[in-house]
Amino acid sequence: MNNAVVLLSGGLDSATVMAMAKQQGYICYALTVDYGQRHYAELAAAERVAQVLGAIEHRVISVDLTGFGGSALTDKRIAVPEQTTTGIPPTYVPARNTIMLSLALAWAEVLQVQDIFIGVNAVDFSGYPDCRPEYIAAFESMANLATKAAVEGKSLTLHAPLLHLSKADIVKSGTRLGLDYSLTVSCYQADSNGRACALCDSCQLRRAGFKTAGIIDPTRYRITG
Amino acid sequence: MNNAVVLLSGGLDSATVMAMAKQQGYICYALTVDYGQRHYAELAAAERVAQVLGAIEHRVISVDLTGFGGSALTDKRIAVPEQTTTGIPPTYVPARNTIMLSLALAWAEVLQVQDIFIGVNAVDFSGYPDCRPEYIAAFESMANLATKAAVEGKSLTLHAPLLHLSKADIVKSGTRLGLDYSLTVSCYQADSNGRACALCDSCQLRRAGFKTAGIIDPTRYRITG
Repeated sequence: MNNAVVLLSGGLDSATVMAMAKQQGYICYALTVDYGQRHYAELAAAERVAQVLGAIEHRVISVDLTGFGGSALTDKRIAVPEQTTTGIPPTYVPARNTIMLSLALAWAEVLQVQDIFIGVNAVDFSGYPDCRPEYIAAFESMANLATKAAVEGKSLTLHAPLLHLSKADIVKSGTRLGLDYSLTVSCYQADSNGRACALCDSCQLRRAGFKTAGIIDPTRYRITG
Repeated sequence: MNNAVVLLSGGLDSATVMAMAKQQGYICYALTVDYGQRHYAELAAAERVAQVLGAIEHRVISVDLTGFGGSALTDKRIAVPEQTTTGIPPTYVPARNTIMLSLALAWAEVLQVQDIFIGVNAVDFSGYPDCRPEYIAAFESMANLATKAAVEGKSLTLHAPLLHLSKADIVKSGTRLGLDYSLTVSCYQADSNGRACALCDSCQLRRAGFKTAGIIDPTRYRITG
């Protein structure tokens, strides 16, 4: 069996990715990045998902991006939009995926692991630049020059199995794998109990995903929606 | 005048890079990464250099890489070698430059800055994979797909002006620019007063650099060397 580092935010997408990695026979080292995100309940969700899906180890690493700000998720003065936006939304966190993948790369290198999984998605992707296929390919190329393993000729694979799936397809895949989505928190403004707002971009995408998939949405909402 | 984010460790190389960026007319936002490095005196040195070279702002961001370990600089159980090593030395920190550049990218994106400076060097480079020209080029390509600015067609330049210089040439360049190297700390096991061991890789490279350049070495050593 192979080992893999899996970036696990506690949201729907990364939980699905971890279920997929497990299904493919990987032993999963789950990595959660506490970057000062507004939706702190996500971190508790990551803990639950890592446990339920049997991560061999779960690390939470802190890097406080609120010092840089520039996003509704890392600067409380910027509101989370509660209607559909066009273009790159204010919830985009500058260079977040690059930072998270870099940390995953560091851990993978220490563990001598050649596989990293990330739950980025280019279909219902909220317009984030660092969720595009060409970005993922470029990160993988860079990573394959960055490490001791690279110098030794071992190649690293960056797996993004959700890249071309719709949210409905993601929900269907996870459900087929027996994943309990009530464990996960996607909402950008979840309360401390992990209950979702039903209004933000992330909630809207998630709700529409369950609806289109024809699967009952187990998300706990603060309001009736 | 253009703005730039400059990665400033407090060592000789990054201080030289900041002096070069300033000379080229850039307004410098200095970024120091506290990654739990053994040579903590480096951080105080970064503070001094940022001030003396007139950084418009100096940020220190923390990301605790001791949780991953895997390097003599982040795991106190691994000794810093006190003689020349072959291959990639134990002081190499897995994915360190990738993490630091990712953080610089995040700040640059928030500041809407298109230039990042880093003091990597491929000549006297201690054998680090992430100091090679092909790595720097790959990071720049990735960065040019990663951000909102990239989507808007603005291109980011990753400047590594020391890449092809010897340590002696670096010392000569900084000296010409009036840089006071006594402000900087390169030693991997500097004491809390910033005094160097004279024995580690980094000290040996630095000492040889001053010697070859024919410039008096202002480094404060703990022992007479």
